[in-house]
Amino acid sequence: MPSKEQLEKYADILIRIGLHVQPEQPVSIDSPIESAEFARLLMNKAYEAGASTVDIEWVDPLAHKIRLQKETDKNLVKVPNWIIQRAQELIDNNAAFLNIAADNPDLLADVDPKRIAMFHKAVGEKAKNVQQYFMEDRVTWLVCSLPTQDWAQKMFPEESATSAVDKLWEAIFKVMRMDAADPVAAWENHIETLDKRAKWLNDLNLKKLHYRAPGTDLTIELSHLHTWIGASSVNEKGTRFVANLPTEEVFTLPKRNGVNGTVRSTMPLAYGGVVIEGMEFTFKEGRITDFSSKTGYETLKGLVDTDEGSHYLGEIALVPNDSPISNLNTLFYNTLFDENASCHMAIGKAYPTCLNGGKEMSEDELLQHGVNDSITHVDFMMGTSELDIDGETQDGKTVAIFRQGNWA
Amino acid sequence: MPSKEQLEKYADILIRIGLHVQPEQPVSIDSPIESAEFARLLMNKAYEAGASTVDIEWVDPLAHKIRLQKETDKNLVKVPNWIIQRAQELIDNNAAFLNIAADNPDLLADVDPKRIAMFHKAVGEKAKNVQQYFMEDRVTWLVCSLPTQDWAQKMFPEESATSAVDKLWEAIFKVMRMDAADPVAAWENHIETLDKRAKWLNDLNLKKLHYRAPGTDLTIELSHLHTWIGASSVNEKGTRFVANLPTEEVFTLPKRNGVNGTVRSTMPLAYGGVVIEGMEFTFKEGRITDFSSKTGYETLKGLVDTDEGSHYLGEIALVPNDSPISNLNTLFYNTLFDENASCHMAIGKAYPTCLNGGKEMSEDELLQHGVNDSITHVDFMMGTSELDIDGETQDGKTVAIFRQGNWA
Repeated sequence: MPSKEQLEKYADILIRIGLHVQPEQPVSIDSPIESAEFARLLMNKAYEAGASTVDIEWVDPLAHKIRLQKETDKNLVKVPNWIIQRAQELIDNNAAFLNIAADNPDLLADVDPKRIAMFHKAVGEKAKNVQQYFMEDRVTWLVCSLPTQDWAQKMFPEESATSAVDKLWEAIFKVMRMDAADPVAAWENHIETLDKRAKWLNDLNLKKLHYRAPGTDLTIELSHLHTWIGASSVNEKGTRFVANLPTEEVFTLPKRNGVNGTVRSTMPLAYGGVVIEGMEFTFKEGRITDFSSKTGYETLKGLVDTDEGSHYLGEIALVPNDSPISNLNTLFYNTLFDENASCHMAIGKAYPTCLNGGKEMSEDELLQHGVNDSITHVDFMMGTSELDIDGETQDGKTVAIFRQGNWA
Repeated sequence: MPSKEQLEKYADILIRIGLHVQPEQPVSIDSPIESAEFARLLMNKAYEAGASTVDIEWVDPLAHKIRLQKETDKNLVKVPNWIIQRAQELIDNNAAFLNIAADNPDLLADVDPKRIAMFHKAVGEKAKNVQQYFMEDRVTWLVCSLPTQDWAQKMFPEESATSAVDKLWEAIFKVMRMDAADPVAAWENHIETLDKRAKWLNDLNLKKLHYRAPGTDLTIELSHLHTWIGASSVNEKGTRFVANLPTEEVFTLPKRNGVNGTVRSTMPLAYGGVVIEGMEFTFKEGRITDFSSKTGYETLKGLVDTDEGSHYLGEIALVPNDSPISNLNTLFYNTLFDENASCHMAIGKAYPTCLNGGKEMSEDELLQHGVNDSITHVDFMMGTSELDIDGETQDGKTVAIFRQGNWA
């Protein structure tokens, strides 16, 4: 069990670096009921930072599972209006949103994947408008994590519950640079490094990327307006925040119709309570024309079939193999961590922030510029120590971007 | 720890007798996060009974306390719209509302009572319209309870946490008639007994009640339209429900301006996280003209000063001294139980259901008929083994209602 000092330091990083709470700003925290103690610490830290009010939206994965199991199809897809009204009211009040991602990766392994997909689709459609505020960074948001018992035991099956949770705390603190003399300063430095890397890529102004690794041979075209983003985002009010902690990635969006070839996933994907392993996708003019997986195929199918946009990519992200998370050599079964151990891509909606001027464009304009739209956005990991990536500049020159899984 | 069978039986009583869940009816459960396991059992039982969906509104008293301590006065009294929108949407969908009352009675002992009162008032004003649906039994609602650790240790301070919780389970099961061969049938019988008692009082058609006990000498006039209610209520759709479990009372409303004399409380009142003991009230033409208490005076003052209506009584309830709860001789510090061990009265809003035709009357008409209005409604216990109550009939005859704390 971490010490009180460690927990306080961790909460400080999340509230001050991640959310960057401003005086008189409301804060919304999505927390598993299991993490109540830390959620209350976050509350206290948010008030210290000047939050006007802190509202915790408690989440119980087991209650969610009962719903998924017991409701008729017709009832399962009814999403109450008040859930959207709550989000919209908080957005209108410039709230900062903190989400604790700590799901048991196997939670829904025995639930019909069709019903999970049905539920995700219903929520995604209902929440499309409020989701836009997050995808465009108009509001401050942060995804971070905490150990929960079932998840920790999935990661460390040979350990007792208590010691699995302890080991997971250790792992999280390691990748959260908590062993630095001043973790807040370490994060400021790291954010600057990622932002510089994004600037380097932006200065290259690439036209195309070519990925090569076992099972992967993929060409990705980039819009002439594309922009790479590092760790820091800026909300509508001009306040900086970091949307993921930890983060090791720089990312942009592919041109919707400009993806061709094959890609093989290199890590399991824990998605909505099910683990999907060994995915392979074939793309033709952007669209997924074929896909397979070794486990969780029905769940993957539900995801790809969500809507038209979920047949296209919405994000490509570069993460070196030599990063604190991948050096741990630990599979987290939690995308927040795993995607920061490996180059990854997302199926579904693209961030309009990855297109210069994108935040000001209409849906039609975004689509014309090759910005994919969907009600879903799910990352999968495809980096490996054998991954090479070449860039092609506007005048046709080739630049080595990644060699053997690391920055060239 | 109760057995699985006992827990299932208890959940059955709450869902089938209390809420009386109907096919395709949505259910809303307010549950402390500490009671997650039982809340999930209630969910399952509600689905078994045909609920269309079950939404749990998780409550964390400790997070609530942080808010009360940390927010500025200005922010503390801002009640989000979505809280009301949620209630209204559920009401519009004919939901059944289950509330688990299991607070630590001392939770807010060290919080400024003025701020607690400020918060209650703000919520009460904002929720006035939705509260009306409950006060008029237009929707199904149930207050029930479960042991929580801090509360159990307040009741059994000499016990360890685990054994205090066990003792509280035992006490709750005792008063919930769980030792009957068929508890559901036992409740059906008991409800019938209470409903018969209410009928007896209604047939008497009393004009006035006169309470006498040490410290109490109170005359209460009754409207010619008053009606006594037993355990069962009927919602707008014609479905029976029981709003409190356990319940031992029959109750009606006093004429707003027809209360004169003094009354002394006989049990501590746990109200909003503070324990108030030794209350005395003086009434003149219905209005509280003087009041005092041995502990919690500031909290009591905050309650009485909520609005004009909180200076008047809204409910009088008769409970014999010889009832399962009072025979336990255990102080619960929880009104759900304590009010069913003792005759009690409520400060604040009257139930329009206690006036014949009241549910169809406008606010003005209700007031004209002596039905008190307020944003609050708080019961306090004033029964004792020395309490005598006389009734006066329309033609001036005296009828003994209570003698030495029991039905005459």
